[in-house]
Amino acid sequence: MSDRKALDELCINTIRFLAVDAVEKANSGHPGAPMGVAPVAYVLWDRFLRHNPADPSWPDRDRFILSAGHASMLLYSLLHLTGYEVSLEDLKAFRQWGSATPGHPERGDTPGVETTTGPLGQGFANGVGAAMAERALAAAYNRPGHEIVDHATYVLCSDGDLMEGVASEAASLAGTLGLGKLVCLYDDNRITIEGSTDLAFTEDVGARFRAFGWQVVGPVDGLDLAAVVGAIEEARSESERPSLVRCRTTIGYGSPKENTADVHGSPLGREAALEAKKRLGWPPEPAFLVPEEVADHMRQALERGDAAERDWKERLAAYASEYGELAVEFSERLSGRLPAGWDAGLDGLYGPGSDAIATRAASGKVLNALAAKVPALFGGSADLAPSNKTSIDGAGSFAADDSAGRNIHFGVREHAMGSIANGLAVHGGFVPYTGTFFTFSDYMRPPMRLAAMMGLRIVYVFTHDSIGLGEDGPTHQPVEHLMSLRAVPNLAVFRPADAWETVEGWRASLAGATGPTALVLSRQNLPVLDPAEFPGVRNAGRGGYVLWESGEGAPEVILMGTGSETHIALAAGRELAGRGRRVRVVSLPCWQLFDGQSPEYRESVLPPAVTARVAVEAGVSRGWEHYVGLAGETVGIDRFGASAPYQTVYEKLGITAANVVARAEALLGA
Amino acid sequence: MSDRKALDELCINTIRFLAVDAVEKANSGHPGAPMGVAPVAYVLWDRFLRHNPADPSWPDRDRFILSAGHASMLLYSLLHLTGYEVSLEDLKAFRQWGSATPGHPERGDTPGVETTTGPLGQGFANGVGAAMAERALAAAYNRPGHEIVDHATYVLCSDGDLMEGVASEAASLAGTLGLGKLVCLYDDNRITIEGSTDLAFTEDVGARFRAFGWQVVGPVDGLDLAAVVGAIEEARSESERPSLVRCRTTIGYGSPKENTADVHGSPLGREAALEAKKRLGWPPEPAFLVPEEVADHMRQALERGDAAERDWKERLAAYASEYGELAVEFSERLSGRLPAGWDAGLDGLYGPGSDAIATRAASGKVLNALAAKVPALFGGSADLAPSNKTSIDGAGSFAADDSAGRNIHFGVREHAMGSIANGLAVHGGFVPYTGTFFTFSDYMRPPMRLAAMMGLRIVYVFTHDSIGLGEDGPTHQPVEHLMSLRAVPNLAVFRPADAWETVEGWRASLAGATGPTALVLSRQNLPVLDPAEFPGVRNAGRGGYVLWESGEGAPEVILMGTGSETHIALAAGRELAGRGRRVRVVSLPCWQLFDGQSPEYRESVLPPAVTARVAVEAGVSRGWEHYVGLAGETVGIDRFGASAPYQTVYEKLGITAANVVARAEALLGA
Repeated sequence: MSDRKALDELCINTIRFLAVDAVEKANSGHPGAPMGVAPVAYVLWDRFLRHNPADPSWPDRDRFILSAGHASMLLYSLLHLTGYEVSLEDLKAFRQWGSATPGHPERGDTPGVETTTGPLGQGFANGVGAAMAERALAAAYNRPGHEIVDHATYVLCSDGDLMEGVASEAASLAGTLGLGKLVCLYDDNRITIEGSTDLAFTEDVGARFRAFGWQVVGPVDGLDLAAVVGAIEEARSESERPSLVRCRTTIGYGSPKENTADVHGSPLGREAALEAKKRLGWPPEPAFLVPEEVADHMRQALERGDAAERDWKERLAAYASEYGELAVEFSERLSGRLPAGWDAGLDGLYGPGSDAIATRAASGKVLNALAAKVPALFGGSADLAPSNKTSIDGAGSFAADDSAGRNIHFGVREHAMGSIANGLAVHGGFVPYTGTFFTFSDYMRPPMRLAAMMGLRIVYVFTHDSIGLGEDGPTHQPVEHLMSLRAVPNLAVFRPADAWETVEGWRASLAGATGPTALVLSRQNLPVLDPAEFPGVRNAGRGGYVLWESGEGAPEVILMGTGSETHIALAAGRELAGRGRRVRVVSLPCWQLFDGQSPEYRESVLPPAVTARVAVEAGVSRGWEHYVGLAGETVGIDRFGASAPYQTVYEKLGITAANVVARAEALLGA
Repeated sequence: MSDRKALDELCINTIRFLAVDAVEKANSGHPGAPMGVAPVAYVLWDRFLRHNPADPSWPDRDRFILSAGHASMLLYSLLHLTGYEVSLEDLKAFRQWGSATPGHPERGDTPGVETTTGPLGQGFANGVGAAMAERALAAAYNRPGHEIVDHATYVLCSDGDLMEGVASEAASLAGTLGLGKLVCLYDDNRITIEGSTDLAFTEDVGARFRAFGWQVVGPVDGLDLAAVVGAIEEARSESERPSLVRCRTTIGYGSPKENTADVHGSPLGREAALEAKKRLGWPPEPAFLVPEEVADHMRQALERGDAAERDWKERLAAYASEYGELAVEFSERLSGRLPAGWDAGLDGLYGPGSDAIATRAASGKVLNALAAKVPALFGGSADLAPSNKTSIDGAGSFAADDSAGRNIHFGVREHAMGSIANGLAVHGGFVPYTGTFFTFSDYMRPPMRLAAMMGLRIVYVFTHDSIGLGEDGPTHQPVEHLMSLRAVPNLAVFRPADAWETVEGWRASLAGATGPTALVLSRQNLPVLDPAEFPGVRNAGRGGYVLWESGEGAPEVILMGTGSETHIALAAGRELAGRGRRVRVVSLPCWQLFDGQSPEYRESVLPPAVTARVAVEAGVSRGWEHYVGLAGETVGIDRFGASAPYQTVYEKLGITAANVVARAEALLGA
């Protein structure tokens, strides 16, 4: 064996047994995938990956995404060995409270982890998003002779990733867009948790990806390093199509139960771990062994990374001297800061006496006003742009032959849309937004959850927000979606009552947002709440505010609502006032933001002493007790909707001012 | 033109213009797809579909599923013309309140509508489920010379359906299973809402399906009836593989804006509708015209259907005379009734002093006890059966070469799993169940919603239900899922506290269920609540009950919880009692069932006078005000979880008896 070959093997076994030992120590985790795919990952990191362990946020680094997040120890081992701030002690704390090495890779917990993975298929689609980000950023800022954005996106994925529908959706779009810098390494080990892939997955994966417009390389033997090198080279040399590199591997390679589902998700156990070490010629002791030559070799990544980053910085400086303004904008983009005056265009969008306008249409206007100032805004719809009003006018379509287009056509692929938005956001340089009907938020919950977990600034435009869409009927009428999304931690669900609240919803989504925002918008026209008459509307960004009061003094009853029903609450309030009641009407577009206000503010809006409270919302009532308590009432919809003109549906399902008045009077003992 | 050809064309134009006129009258709907694909659908219904309009529930009918549910008027026209109880008046009431012709096909609203469609991709996957049902039922009941189950499943789908990931998932599984009686007609019109499919969908769909193991027929010209006939014949003659028949069509065929997105989702408008009629040689008046020869011809479906059903009944009688018991069981299966004594095995599953057991493991025992008595139980897991405990022991795997196997291997495809379960349920003869981790319920919400809407009896086994799964960390730890699924109308979310509550959860899922049930189960072991000590546990099927009280007399404080936290509430209750408090502990495994009890029962469990209430649940707290009000407290988790051994996570996130005690004492002013 050549020295180099021996060294490679030593490095690979180090990766394998760091994973094995960490899983043993934690008595929890997934040893099988790291043992099987270690050679492939090693080759990528050793021969191809352009990164700088000393600066994990270097903008022009290649991205590496471990879609098979359960193989987290593979990644942690690589991060440790190549010199990221992940110590051997961190590896020993695998899966322990507060450690930098959680069970699955968590963005933010570990330097070098680009995105949170574990739920299968997500990382794959994140990779598609990251590759789109690279291409769009390159189109916006590269200039002849100045390739300041030029990096690859590598994804390592498993059988399970490729069974998930979201991967198909994203792969099809990646093929259409011709993302030539995207390389997906497929850990093809033919084993899933229930057994052989023959049980449920006999398709020809390569043929599927070729059908999607991908280059498919291999299969290659994942143990044959030269073959893996050649395959990745072939992938890298293709610039018009994304590449799938199919690597045949053996799950749990070396362990007595290799090639079985048993090595997937639990520790090998002491005996089997020792046997595996024996088989692969690894000393039984000590655990967490890193031979010095391995450390020396792998930490060369630091030098290579430093040189690469320095080279890039020099090129960036040359670029800046020639394209000063662009360089400043580029740097601002990457910082995530919004340009000065980014929201200056919003305050004049509507005048007094503006015609009633659907909040989806209002949102379209806001988006276009913002897009003119915020080049980072990049998004589109899952084939509903004309309905969602998500197009940036005149900004072109992002396509294989137009990388400068700002409108993304996701196709009817809500799930991939959400995951791609995460990929755009974690890449950096973008404020992604998406569009679909609110009822189809169900198709994209998994990436929304991950966005909330990662604290990504993403705006989900959801239109056709209730029975107010009318004739399309129950399948298209959300009733549970508001309440069910309000349950997601760190996701702001913002349902504006009118055009002005829509402005504030967008503003809050971009400014100071610590996570994603769902803007929930009406299909039907809604009156505009003129700030001259309703000054409180400027407070919509606080999530809740006093919209209207019948007069001075403490109210007897508080009516509250969101979105289109705010107008029903207002009508009911006026009716009750006409009947001599002291009424307050509260608009609550965003519970998440309102609950984050000071207790003083919240109590100023909803004084605890006023227990006669009626909420109205065209959605399920359970959950509104959060504001109305057990003493209050909610006019809601505790069933699925119905197909009919929307005014009829409102009437038949009782979402009316008359009903609000009746409930309020009952509470007041009228 | 031959007479037959002229008649065919007349029939096709009738279908087209019934759709056009209905959409015009409703001033809402989707004319484009019916106009384009009418010839294909007509050929199928006229030449192939074996059905009986006079008996839409005839068990051995071919199934027709309109996955492109927005083309509902196509289906309604066919139903009307072939003699279902769908009158011309019904067509005129398209999309109106209470009509039999809602905006999208709704199972239950219209005779002949097999499944609710509209959300794209669902119908396609339902079709896979229906074809699996046919095959499994045939394997169970057919005997040599007695093919009492022998029907095809036809799906009509659009570009949008095939872009959705769920369709890929289901198609891959259908290929693996070799569902030869499944025929999918693909309305390939190359237009989506945002424009040409070139924008986002340039993949080679045929090659993709071949990669999935399908036969791909065509493309054929959808206007060439002979070609369509030939293609469907080719599809029907293939028995080992599902078939995709690719039909090139023109959206909005005949209208001035044919072949554009403009004809997809809104009325043509009076002028364009008249122009279309003119172009296709159709009289401008009257609207809703059905030429007599069309009515005569298409209503021949009644005779054909009657003959086919009579023939089947004769064959069924011959079968019954030879296989009496089987015939009775078959008939019971189809009726949806559970066999006598179906739950007899449950009461003895656990004895006094049973060891602590995870509710997922308890569920596995219950499932196996039930499966022995209920042959209709059919299901499996999305590649997590060993963890979900969803295998029926010794019952084999449902596979291409074993149609009698009762364990379905769905692969890592939660979304398709849910949609296939819907297909099994709407087909009839099955009580489907599924399995995955609770956090991945997010991947399958769309079909769960549809199951709830259709009132299908399906059991979703969701294990690893909370931070109690420990080390896998935040991506795998559900926190919002309980609350967010409780928001879905008609979905019972049942989170049992122990093995006995698990028994009652399963019992409630099967008996008298009017919709699906999500059983939410622990990974970790939980003590068994011996009914001798806790007799209330037998009431778990009521959704909530008094688990324990410190003594006689009205309680000062009520503690409540679900699942594993019920034991925390109990420990806290005992601690408070030791400190001299009168305490009641309430177990609330299923809000949906509890809220459906009489007010008397509910108040007997939660007396309104007792306002000092503390809830504890390892999930988001918002929503618990439903039971604790604004005066109460909730010990919950309003953030994402963390990776660590589960006991540590409970402690660090404060889900402890000590915290419950502290909150209770604070409420009581201790």
